Amino acid sequence: MQALARLPIFLALAGKRALVAGNGAPVAWKAEMLAAAGADVAVFAEQPCEELRTIAAHPPHAAIALQQRAWRIEDFAGAAVAVGGFEEAAEAERFSGAARAAGVPVNVIDRPAYCDFSFGAIVNRSPLVIGISTDGAAPVFAQAIRAKLETMIPRGFARWADAARRWRQAVQSSGLSPSGRRQFWRAFAAFAVSNPQREPAPSD
Amino acid sequence: MQALARLPIFLALAGKRALVAGNGAPVAWKAEMLAAAGADVAVFAEQPCEELRTIAAHPPHAAIALQQRAWRIEDFAGAAVAVGGFEEAAEAERFSGAARAAGVPVNVIDRPAYCDFSFGAIVNRSPLVIGISTDGAAPVFAQAIRAKLETMIPRGFARWADAARRWRQAVQSSGLSPSGRRQFWRAFAAFAVSNPQREPAPSD
Repeated sequence: MQALARLPIFLALAGKRALVAGNGAPVAWKAEMLAAAGADVAVFAEQPCEELRTIAAHPPHAAIALQQRAWRIEDFAGAAVAVGGFEEAAEAERFSGAARAAGVPVNVIDRPAYCDFSFGAIVNRSPLVIGISTDGAAPVFAQAIRAKLETMIPRGFARWADAARRWRQAVQSSGLSPSGRRQFWRAFAAFAVSNPQREPAPSD
Repeated sequence: MQALARLPIFLALAGKRALVAGNGAPVAWKAEMLAAAGADVAVFAEQPCEELRTIAAHPPHAAIALQQRAWRIEDFAGAAVAVGGFEEAAEAERFSGAARAAGVPVNVIDRPAYCDFSFGAIVNRSPLVIGISTDGAAPVFAQAIRAKLETMIPRGFARWADAARRWRQAVQSSGLSPSGRRQFWRAFAAFAVSNPQREPAPSD
């Protein structure tokens, strides 16, 4: 296997706690993304900006609890992930150190030295999700690839992935052998990839 | 933002410790992938299978240290990520519990209930890395999309991402305004996406 700049993993955040601290629009976007992924998001900002207030008032999926105070060490307890955005390098360092001491994977926006992980550009066709990272090479690069993938994988494609999930149980109990099931899914996937716009029907 | 089945993140594993426990070919593949991403991988297996022995003898990038004993609670200390593969549900549960108590994100192969995250299919054009998850809908589905992306993004594309990283400093100090730099990168990315096979040259 060739050297891999970063290891992509997919966090299951439903019902988990996410900690967000700091201020500004990029912080608000991360809070929104974490909530969209199902996390209960706790945001700590002494003087929350407009974007943070708006997001907290209209969270996309799960809850966003905005607390008008600075973050504290004890806020990390039980968090699955932590994201911060700070003007001051010193605060970025303290936040990252506190997260690591608590065993919480941490990202500090625009400060790679204080990050355990980076976010990539995302193509969201849930349950199909694609993440694109350029390891800091040029963010606009990942955006260009995302735009290309979004054209290539139309929204309707999500229905195929969804159908696969619904049919999985039926295929498991169909009496097909493991290799027969694998063949079925291979044919299914090939058909979906070449017919992304088509609506999956029980007859397929 | 629409609900997101999983949140893709990209782990920076260079110089970090990864813990792998259990046995079998899928366990060996995960150890290989973690090492390819630059982690120092510690593998614990009482009776390591052929695949584990081979991988440990020829790690792809960083080191893989194979220890012929069962994993212990203290092995989790300082680990950035933990992956296990077990026959017994009871051991899967113990492993996952120990990881979570130690604050280490954990994946137990084929046991979603004991996982904090899942792996996806990977397109490796480092520094460009793409991860594809179908949230367990049908793994073969992610494989089909990977195959399509691999055709779409030829190996040569990695050179463009690499060039972007090398040129970044020069562009930062070029005297261009932030919006001028953004325009430059947008043009650069658009050119690369439409000329993936071409070799980037200084004149570009």
